[in-house]
Amino acid sequence: MTARIVDVETIDVRFPTSASLDGSDAMNDAPDYSAAYVVLHVDGGDERTNALEGHGFTFTIGRGNDLAVHAARAIGERAVGMSVDEIVGDLGGFSRHLLADSQLRWLGPDKGAIHLGTAAVVNAAWDLAGKLAGKPVWKLLADMSPRQIVDLVDWRYLKDALTPDAALALLESRAAGRAEREAHVLEMGYPAYTTSAGWLGYDDAKLARLCQEAVDAGWDSVKLKVGADLDDDVRRCRIARDIIGPDRRLMIDANQTLGVAEAVEWAKALAQFDIWWFEEPTSPDDILGHAAIARAIAPTHVATGEHAHNAVMFKQFLQADAIGICQIDACRLGGVNEAVAALLLAAAHDVPVCPHAGGVGLCELVQHLSIFDYVAVSGSMDDRVVEYVDHLHEHFHDPVRIRGSRYLVPEAPGYSAQIRRETLADYRFPDGPRWSGPRMAS
Amino acid sequence: MTARIVDVETIDVRFPTSASLDGSDAMNDAPDYSAAYVVLHVDGGDERTNALEGHGFTFTIGRGNDLAVHAARAIGERAVGMSVDEIVGDLGGFSRHLLADSQLRWLGPDKGAIHLGTAAVVNAAWDLAGKLAGKPVWKLLADMSPRQIVDLVDWRYLKDALTPDAALALLESRAAGRAEREAHVLEMGYPAYTTSAGWLGYDDAKLARLCQEAVDAGWDSVKLKVGADLDDDVRRCRIARDIIGPDRRLMIDANQTLGVAEAVEWAKALAQFDIWWFEEPTSPDDILGHAAIARAIAPTHVATGEHAHNAVMFKQFLQADAIGICQIDACRLGGVNEAVAALLLAAAHDVPVCPHAGGVGLCELVQHLSIFDYVAVSGSMDDRVVEYVDHLHEHFHDPVRIRGSRYLVPEAPGYSAQIRRETLADYRFPDGPRWSGPRMAS
Repeated sequence: MTARIVDVETIDVRFPTSASLDGSDAMNDAPDYSAAYVVLHVDGGDERTNALEGHGFTFTIGRGNDLAVHAARAIGERAVGMSVDEIVGDLGGFSRHLLADSQLRWLGPDKGAIHLGTAAVVNAAWDLAGKLAGKPVWKLLADMSPRQIVDLVDWRYLKDALTPDAALALLESRAAGRAEREAHVLEMGYPAYTTSAGWLGYDDAKLARLCQEAVDAGWDSVKLKVGADLDDDVRRCRIARDIIGPDRRLMIDANQTLGVAEAVEWAKALAQFDIWWFEEPTSPDDILGHAAIARAIAPTHVATGEHAHNAVMFKQFLQADAIGICQIDACRLGGVNEAVAALLLAAAHDVPVCPHAGGVGLCELVQHLSIFDYVAVSGSMDDRVVEYVDHLHEHFHDPVRIRGSRYLVPEAPGYSAQIRRETLADYRFPDGPRWSGPRMAS
Repeated sequence: MTARIVDVETIDVRFPTSASLDGSDAMNDAPDYSAAYVVLHVDGGDERTNALEGHGFTFTIGRGNDLAVHAARAIGERAVGMSVDEIVGDLGGFSRHLLADSQLRWLGPDKGAIHLGTAAVVNAAWDLAGKLAGKPVWKLLADMSPRQIVDLVDWRYLKDALTPDAALALLESRAAGRAEREAHVLEMGYPAYTTSAGWLGYDDAKLARLCQEAVDAGWDSVKLKVGADLDDDVRRCRIARDIIGPDRRLMIDANQTLGVAEAVEWAKALAQFDIWWFEEPTSPDDILGHAAIARAIAPTHVATGEHAHNAVMFKQFLQADAIGICQIDACRLGGVNEAVAALLLAAAHDVPVCPHAGGVGLCELVQHLSIFDYVAVSGSMDDRVVEYVDHLHEHFHDPVRIRGSRYLVPEAPGYSAQIRRETLADYRFPDGPRWSGPRMAS
C-alpha cells in the first residue's frame, strides 16, 4: 500500500502576547502572536511512513488568523490523496501544484491569506520530508545537488534577473566548500541578533535594562523599533548606543510607518548613532521608494522583506539596489521553495540575507534557511545575522538553542516546526482554555 | 435617534460560468464568476435613513470566494455601530478606519483576501452614501470640491509621486470645465471596448463569428486573450484583424502567463496585427519587468492593473514608465477611495485610465469611476475606454446600459452595485438552488 497524505488537520493557535506589549511596534501596537497550523497526516507504506506527520504553519498577529487557517485548509486539500514518495521526490513540483489552483490564485496572486496558507502547507511538506529522510531541513537541502536545488524553484517570473543555468553555475561554484562550511557551522553555530530589548511599548528604564542584559548575555547586535515619534527615537537610540558601546551593531525598524521623505529624515536624524540598517522604512510594496531611501541614507543599509510577499518582489528589490540587507520570512513567502528562490537571487546580487524571525516559531524555521544559505548558496556568514526574539520557544518540540549570540545547528529531523500537542490544545482559538476563560476573552 | 450601521450582511454568490468557458484565459481556465457580497444595514434616523441599505461586493472567480466573504465580515464589523452621518461625512476617514486594524493588516498589508474584503465594505459605504444623497456615485464624486476629493485619499505612501497640494492644484485646474464635460458625457456616454469575442476557450469559428458580431454591433475596440501558444495567437489575431479591419483597435491580454523575455517575443510576433495594448504580459507584481517590456515593445502600450493590489503599486508603475494604459479594478483596490488615488496618480502622470471590468458587476462599478475621471480628474476621454463584457448584467437592479460602443451614464442613486434578492438566493454558495442540485455540485 502506497503511503499517502490522508488528511490535512488545521488549528488556529493564538498566544495572548498583547497583554505585555511584547512585539509592539509603530504599526502593530498590540499583536497576539498566532500560528495557522497544519498537520499533514500520512497513512500506508511501511513503518517509516505509517502515521508520519508533517507539521507546518504560517504566522499572523491575531485577528485574521482564522482566514490563514481557512486558506491553509483550502490549499492543503490539494495534497490529500497524493503519494508521499511523489511529494518528497519532487518538492518543487509539489509547491507549484499547490499554487496552481487558478480560482484560489485570483485572491492574490501569490500574496495575502492564500499565500500564507500555502506557506503553512509547503512548510509542513518539508517537515515531513525531513522526518522521512531522518534529517533536519537545512541538511536535507544542503545534501541536494545543485540541479535538485534549482528544480525547487518556480522560475517563470525570475529569469530576467537570474536564469536557472546561472543559478546552477552559482551553486556549483559553491559545491566544493560545502563539507568544510557544514563542519564550521556545526561547531560555531550561526550569528544572531536580538530584538527583545527594543519593542516600542517598553519605557526607557525597561529599554535600558534590556539593552544591558543583552550586552551581558553576549549579544553584539541589537535592534530597536522606531517610527512613531522622532524625538522619542533619538532619545531611545541614544540610550541604546550608550549602553551597547561603539563596537556593537545597532539597527532600527520603523515597521512601514513612514513615507519616503519622512524615512530619509528619520535615518539622517539617527545616523549619529551609527545605524547598521534601517528596516521597513516604508510600504513593503514600494520598491522604488526603498531604492530612493537607500540612495539617500547610505552607508546605512535599507533592509526589508518580512512583508515582501513573493520572489518577484525580492527580485525587484535586488534589481533596483533598493536593499542592502535581504530579510526573507519563512511564512510570508510561500514556504521553503520560494525562500530558496530568494536566497539564490540575493546570492546572485551579493546581498546578505538576514531573515526576519521572532513571532511564534519563525526563529525555529529560518535557522534552517540561513544554515543552508551558508553551506550551499552564499557560502558566507559575513554581515549575516538571524533575528532572535526570546518568546514562545517553550511550546516547540525542538526549540532553537542559542549560545552567546549564535544559533546552534538544529539536529532533529524535520523543520523544527512542531508545536507541542498540549500547547495546541491550550491556546486553540477561540475555544482553548487560555482563550475561553472570562478574563482572556478576545 | 442617530442613524447607525446596525448589521453587516455577507453573502457568498457564485455563478457557474465555467460550464461555458466564458471568461477563460491562459491563466484562468475555468472561472466561476463570484461576488463576496456585503449589505450594510442602517437603523434609526429619519425616513431617509431608516432601513437604508448600502450594497457592495468584491469579485473573485470561484473557490476562495468564501475567504473574501469572511474577510469582508471581519472588516465590516468595524463599521457596525458607526453613525451614518459620520461615515458619509468623511468617507476618507471611514476607509482609513477600516484599513487600520493592525492584526488584520498583517495578512496583507493592503493586498489579498483582507483587501478584497475591505473593497466590498468601502464600496457598500459609497453605495449607501449615493443613495442617501440621491445621486449616482459618479455624481456624488463629481460634485465634491477639490479639497474634499483630496481628503478621500490615504497619502501616507504616495507623497513622493504626488503631494496632496499637487493633487489639489490638478483638480482645481480641471474644475472650470466640469459642467461642460458632465453635459457632454450625459449626452454622448463613455467609450467602451468588448472582450466578449476573444476568450481563449473559444474555437476559431466562434472567435470569427463573435468578432463579426462585435463589428456589426458598433464596437470599435476588441480585445483577445493570448499567452498559451504563440502560433495559436498569431492565427487568432490574424482572424480578428481580418474581420475588424485596419481602423478598429485590437488589444491582447496574456493574463500574467509570460516571463519578461517571452512577453517581448510575443509582442514582437503579434505587432504585425497593429496591437494597441498588451495587457498583463507578466506577473502583476513586476514593476521593473513591465518597464523593461514597455521599453522593448513601443509603440505598443503595456497595460496592467486588474491585479495591482493598491495605490503604491500604481504609483510605481507610473513612476517607472512601466504602463501606457492604467487598468484600475474597482474591487482589487480597496474600494472607491483607493481608486480615486489611482485616478489622481494616473492623471498626474498623463497616463489614460482604462478600467478592468467584466466578471460580475465590475462594469456596473467602473463606469462611475471613469465618468468621474472624465468630469473632474483627467478631463479627457482620449485613448480611454472601459472594458465591457456582456455577462450577468441581468442580475443587477441598475445594470449598465450600452449604446453602440458606449456606456450610458448611470442615473439611479448609489453605486449600481445592488444584485437582485432572487439572484442572491438562487446563486448563494453552496446552498442556493443553482449549486445544491446534483448536477451543479462543485
